[in-house]
Amino acid sequence: MASVPSVSYSITVRLEVPAGGRAVSQITHVVENAGGIVTALDVNTAAHETLRIDVTIATRDTEHAEAIVAVVEAIEGVRIHKVSDRTFLMHLGGKIEMRSKVPLRTRDELSMAYTPGVARVSLAIARNPEDARRLTVKRNSVAVVTDGSAVLGLGNIGPEAALPVMEGKAALFKRFADIDAWPICLDTQDTDEIVRTVQIIAPGFGGINLEDISAPRCFEVEARLRELLDIPVFHDDQHGTAICVLAALTNALRVVGKDLADVRIAMAGAGAAGTAILKLLLHAGARDVIVNDYHGAVHRGRDDLDDSLRWIADHTNADGYAGDLRGAVKDADVFIGVSAPGILTGDDVATMNEDAIVFALANPEPEVSPDAAREHAAVVATGRSDYPNQINNVLAFPGVFRGLLDAQADGVSQGMLLAAAQALAAVVTDDELGPNYIVPSVFHPDVTQAVAAAVREAAGGRPRTEG
Amino acid sequence: MASVPSVSYSITVRLEVPAGGRAVSQITHVVENAGGIVTALDVNTAAHETLRIDVTIATRDTEHAEAIVAVVEAIEGVRIHKVSDRTFLMHLGGKIEMRSKVPLRTRDELSMAYTPGVARVSLAIARNPEDARRLTVKRNSVAVVTDGSAVLGLGNIGPEAALPVMEGKAALFKRFADIDAWPICLDTQDTDEIVRTVQIIAPGFGGINLEDISAPRCFEVEARLRELLDIPVFHDDQHGTAICVLAALTNALRVVGKDLADVRIAMAGAGAAGTAILKLLLHAGARDVIVNDYHGAVHRGRDDLDDSLRWIADHTNADGYAGDLRGAVKDADVFIGVSAPGILTGDDVATMNEDAIVFALANPEPEVSPDAAREHAAVVATGRSDYPNQINNVLAFPGVFRGLLDAQADGVSQGMLLAAAQALAAVVTDDELGPNYIVPSVFHPDVTQAVAAAVREAAGGRPRTEG
Repeated sequence: MASVPSVSYSITVRLEVPAGGRAVSQITHVVENAGGIVTALDVNTAAHETLRIDVTIATRDTEHAEAIVAVVEAIEGVRIHKVSDRTFLMHLGGKIEMRSKVPLRTRDELSMAYTPGVARVSLAIARNPEDARRLTVKRNSVAVVTDGSAVLGLGNIGPEAALPVMEGKAALFKRFADIDAWPICLDTQDTDEIVRTVQIIAPGFGGINLEDISAPRCFEVEARLRELLDIPVFHDDQHGTAICVLAALTNALRVVGKDLADVRIAMAGAGAAGTAILKLLLHAGARDVIVNDYHGAVHRGRDDLDDSLRWIADHTNADGYAGDLRGAVKDADVFIGVSAPGILTGDDVATMNEDAIVFALANPEPEVSPDAAREHAAVVATGRSDYPNQINNVLAFPGVFRGLLDAQADGVSQGMLLAAAQALAAVVTDDELGPNYIVPSVFHPDVTQAVAAAVREAAGGRPRTEG
Repeated sequence: MASVPSVSYSITVRLEVPAGGRAVSQITHVVENAGGIVTALDVNTAAHETLRIDVTIATRDTEHAEAIVAVVEAIEGVRIHKVSDRTFLMHLGGKIEMRSKVPLRTRDELSMAYTPGVARVSLAIARNPEDARRLTVKRNSVAVVTDGSAVLGLGNIGPEAALPVMEGKAALFKRFADIDAWPICLDTQDTDEIVRTVQIIAPGFGGINLEDISAPRCFEVEARLRELLDIPVFHDDQHGTAICVLAALTNALRVVGKDLADVRIAMAGAGAAGTAILKLLLHAGARDVIVNDYHGAVHRGRDDLDDSLRWIADHTNADGYAGDLRGAVKDADVFIGVSAPGILTGDDVATMNEDAIVFALANPEPEVSPDAAREHAAVVATGRSDYPNQINNVLAFPGVFRGLLDAQADGVSQGMLLAAAQALAAVVTDDELGPNYIVPSVFHPDVTQAVAAAVREAAGGRPRTEG
């Protein structure tokens, strides 16, 4: 998967070496010879004869890690005690917890937080249900809902295996937007049951974040829930991605001095992300888009169109181009891929219009090699963190939900997504803007609040109530 | 509701008084004259001419609070700024939050907690689903599930209004057993839908705590879920109450020197709590029980018996007593009420056997006045915190779930409930035991671990794995 050593494949090797010999100085050397990187070397206990050392090593993957352990073990005098995987260690016991915000030290505090005091709070909400957004966690809580059918690039791995990802998402919600998200992993992949279950558990939450539900079911789940619920429903794979792509494209167009209304856009991928990106691009004013899937350009003449592809055919490709992706890319100003690895080459990028913009977002292997694309395009973005211009949903979803919750919004509109994208783009100032800086870092301190403020205003602008 | 001032009806009055006069000294006086108790008096700002003071006052109820504010306002020179209700203040914004246990400060930490590192953890669980109990929050999480149909003594107030109670319960889980509970408030009261919804959301949780679901639906919900799920399902109103009652009765019998197998027990209440108490009493060896409901003693000859009452008739009241509660109490050794206020008098208690035990658990008004009962009974217990021997479920459910989660139990048995009750009773030593101390305080430091250890052992005794 990764071609360079990464901390996500980091191991910690506990070993013993003779205190006097040359073994210690050899460890770093053999690890680096084997292609690993020693990121820490901690002497744990130093006895008269031996040292016990924890060596932390970034490796490329599991096999690479095993190979590195073998070369370390081969050093004369080294005895391996234990090999720990840092990523697994981090996940032990789960990554999230529930915390009480109120002290429960005394009988009096129990009496206010629980019976009998809580009864008055419940009665107040029974009289005025809107008070739940003031007097309960509903004010700040989001359900992170998945059926485990399309988890990361792993496919249909089921609800239990999806849980670590949903916990991670919940942790990101807290880290970036102080939101209390809780994972809800569903033991069903039936559309009707997903919809009904989310509807039934909705009263305790202020928003629903759908996650990693496979297309085309995700469209129906989202659309029906938006009809049924009085809290916002957001499908991050669709709407979060769309916001980030539009923000990045807005800034890439600033770099090359073109206008969204004038550019020709070729897209690859007509799934959940592709469709949502398209809709937001059109809403933002794009007028010349051709979407491609496995079978080539989506056009009205195709006889294999489902409802979603039919909508795409009706709203894009006015000239009815019926060729393949390669032909669609020719003379295009913008390529946006959310599809499959290696479907284009640098030569294809060379056929694009001058000052081309290439967003190759398939992960971990992009649609075209970023290095090759860079030779012919003015701006290149990927989903990867080891190239500039990473399109990362963490830039969008925390701020979007912060804004929605603060506004006590009862839904999400295209207008809110557009406002979020514009606010995200505007975080990059004219001075900072450049071909290698079209989106802010995920750690940029202004991102969440900028996005939140824009969404809050677009949602009707109720100011954040602190209680 | 309460006849004495209580912190659960505590208010904080912000007021201004002339700095020089006698007004300050009058405040406490007039509050106490009006039946309130000043629990704090904080001078907020002292200017040349005026003092701004926050006075916190325990009152009896809302009307009483208003009356007290009026007498304070009538003091010459006093100007009331704002009256806050301390219980409502405590609930603002909710009582619980989600917290991340892993740091997300750097790109490397993101890469391990979320993509790409998390993918390996998900794959490990996909290969071995049991690993979810090691590598995710499932290891320590409980869903606190309600449909809002029977919340405290408030009745069918719905899922939003139930949320403050469920949050309080979650806070208690954390406070007493370090368990990560999250409230799930269901927008349905249909038995089939409740069962199916809980089944669908179960993968993310290590246990299900059913709460405040009205009888008789709660029996079916619990029984069906126990069949369907491979995690423990516990209905606190039934099983938590049963554990506490059996523990208290065990110790009350120690006080009077009687044996459970020999005593005659009259019960009032055949709902969720009553039925569960009965079943656990029988499992523990009780042999002579008469259960009474609104229509008098439950006996086989009655023609109004549903399935649950039929079961009761078949397992109690061997002599077929067909009279009323009053007659059932006569000559009984033990009375256990989980029914309605004021259905017995002290004179009724006087007809009981010598060294009678009276558990009058209806809340907030017991079945018989505790003071009147005490004149004729050897041991009296209630559900109230302002009398000795409070039967409080906080004594049971945290430890029960701690034990179940630590044992990675796939269910709950009567044997585990019995073990929990025995362990809870045993926390009270022979030296401590007495008519006014048959159950430990909820703050007793040994309770949770004693109950947890007993449940863990009864569940098969897998030791607590720390990861």
